[in-house]
Amino acid sequence: MSAVVKRFPQRLDTRQGQVDMTHGSGGRAMAQLIDALFVKYFDNDLLRQSNDQAAFNVDAGRMVMSTDGHVISPLFFPGGDIGGLAVHGTVNDVAMSGAKPLYLSAGFILEEGFPLSDLERIVESMAKASKEAGVPVVTGDTKVVEKGKGDGVFITTTGVGIVPEGVNISGDLARPGDVILVNGTMGDHGVAIMSSRENLEFETTIESDSAALHTLVAEMVSVAPDIHCLRDPTRGGLATTLNELAMQSNVGMRLRETDIPIKPEVSAACELLGLDPLYVANEGKLICICPAKDAKAVLDVMKSHPLGEDAVIIGEVVEDEHSFVQMETAFGGGRVVDWIAGEQLPRIC
Amino acid sequence: MSAVVKRFPQRLDTRQGQVDMTHGSGGRAMAQLIDALFVKYFDNDLLRQSNDQAAFNVDAGRMVMSTDGHVISPLFFPGGDIGGLAVHGTVNDVAMSGAKPLYLSAGFILEEGFPLSDLERIVESMAKASKEAGVPVVTGDTKVVEKGKGDGVFITTTGVGIVPEGVNISGDLARPGDVILVNGTMGDHGVAIMSSRENLEFETTIESDSAALHTLVAEMVSVAPDIHCLRDPTRGGLATTLNELAMQSNVGMRLRETDIPIKPEVSAACELLGLDPLYVANEGKLICICPAKDAKAVLDVMKSHPLGEDAVIIGEVVEDEHSFVQMETAFGGGRVVDWIAGEQLPRIC
Repeated sequence: MSAVVKRFPQRLDTRQGQVDMTHGSGGRAMAQLIDALFVKYFDNDLLRQSNDQAAFNVDAGRMVMSTDGHVISPLFFPGGDIGGLAVHGTVNDVAMSGAKPLYLSAGFILEEGFPLSDLERIVESMAKASKEAGVPVVTGDTKVVEKGKGDGVFITTTGVGIVPEGVNISGDLARPGDVILVNGTMGDHGVAIMSSRENLEFETTIESDSAALHTLVAEMVSVAPDIHCLRDPTRGGLATTLNELAMQSNVGMRLRETDIPIKPEVSAACELLGLDPLYVANEGKLICICPAKDAKAVLDVMKSHPLGEDAVIIGEVVEDEHSFVQMETAFGGGRVVDWIAGEQLPRIC
Repeated sequence: MSAVVKRFPQRLDTRQGQVDMTHGSGGRAMAQLIDALFVKYFDNDLLRQSNDQAAFNVDAGRMVMSTDGHVISPLFFPGGDIGGLAVHGTVNDVAMSGAKPLYLSAGFILEEGFPLSDLERIVESMAKASKEAGVPVVTGDTKVVEKGKGDGVFITTTGVGIVPEGVNISGDLARPGDVILVNGTMGDHGVAIMSSRENLEFETTIESDSAALHTLVAEMVSVAPDIHCLRDPTRGGLATTLNELAMQSNVGMRLRETDIPIKPEVSAACELLGLDPLYVANEGKLICICPAKDAKAVLDVMKSHPLGEDAVIIGEVVEDEHSFVQMETAFGGGRVVDWIAGEQLPRIC
């Protein structure tokens, strides 16, 4: 229990209370909020020090840093909430360099009037995700904006991690002949959010795939340190992310539609909603591009991990000065899988 | 020039254009925005790699990490804007551990309809502050929320830095007998913002003191590695920050009102606005608590730095199990300088 609780023993009213402007003032109310929610749930020595920064020892090496703002709407959705998502999203961005994520920071922007009970649920879920991932939230910040100047809660998380010796993964390293893999079905997260927004009901609830992928990545790089690219296909989905990688590496890609795993219920919902699942966001999926010689070893280790059971090879990298992503369709034809042009799914993460 | 510009040569309309939902979609419009603003102004190799994370080498040692959300209103104010502030705020939070700040990340939450010309001004100012500080913005993220769900722009920055060997600064290390110093006048930032909000005009414009303090800190720790506490008195001002430190260290403090530097125009504005300058935010000031034996050396080095010309000793740390901050007033009386209770100045940073 921190010094703040000793001095301010009043409980925060997390049942009936709401966020008010004093919770962002730097004074007593903010100290209470921090103690009754953040220090309580995140529960680690670095946070408990109550300094404006967290200090920890690092070994010499290659460090990565990544940041992600989370503005998803609704805040609670089938399979997760903004709290868990804010942990998974940044753990994954760090892990996509092959790094082992070490620590997270969290910046909250709260809207005046937001129920403290909802904030507590979110912080609790964030703490759970952080503990499960073994990546503690060691420092943070809270701001409050007036009612109508925000939308409940926005959470910006930043992560740092260390890349194992010999691993060098980057979006510009895909080479013709490389193989493209994914760890599972596409579009689950985006469809879960859209169904929840539209109040659609299906026979089975479609849940977000929100998950931390760093333990999967650790096993992949341990069997194949020469993996070229890893990226999580979030906003814009598989199609947009592959286009980014193709452009960065100045290569083309050829996919086989029949090999891209999509759940039947996600397919059906996409048809109903007028969405293309290849452009729909994922939050527990990764694209891996590796030399053909490593593909089997990578696929095997993916399939033996709980988050890679449905892993599959979906295509190859080819030479193409126009960096087109092309797909052999289920009917044997071909199509260019282009960048997403406009906004397909706003505030999906 | 990055791959994105090669492929999407259309210019972003930063004269007439506005932020729209597509700028957060993960697609083409977002890539254009990132390239035409962030990559252009922040201009460094790590950002230009276009990965979802930045990688850099670190030496073994003690690292610090700090994060700060910036929701200041108005976005532009006398002496600065949210962009410069977002750099200074986090550079300072890192530096207050005695660390040398190395890298920054930046997460933007933009409101639909926000003028791109204003965003460009902000990014340009952020880039300038980052270059002047020598702390590059190496990775970032952009989200867009619907009109009425945000307030122009919020910026969350996170910084990492390395603490020099032998330096150990923390809020719980103040000891009775220690000396309390500040590097200059109190309340300038908060009064600049409030005057600007209230459209107050004074004979001289009161400007924010927004500045990066890490070079000042580096000189201070080089002459006195045994400094006990450093903290920047932002939200809640000098009074609240001293109360935090007193509580963390379980000590009391005694200040002399006549020694606390306050500009006459800030004093006058505070009287007009009904504010107590001791509770008003600063963005280029620090509190230093060090052993009495080091005080002269620290003071001398502060006074010889452009950001410490008005440095002064304002009081001492004393034994006090109640952790009270007390002040000998200008009239020879005494008063307890308590925590700020409510919200004095909303959205001041």
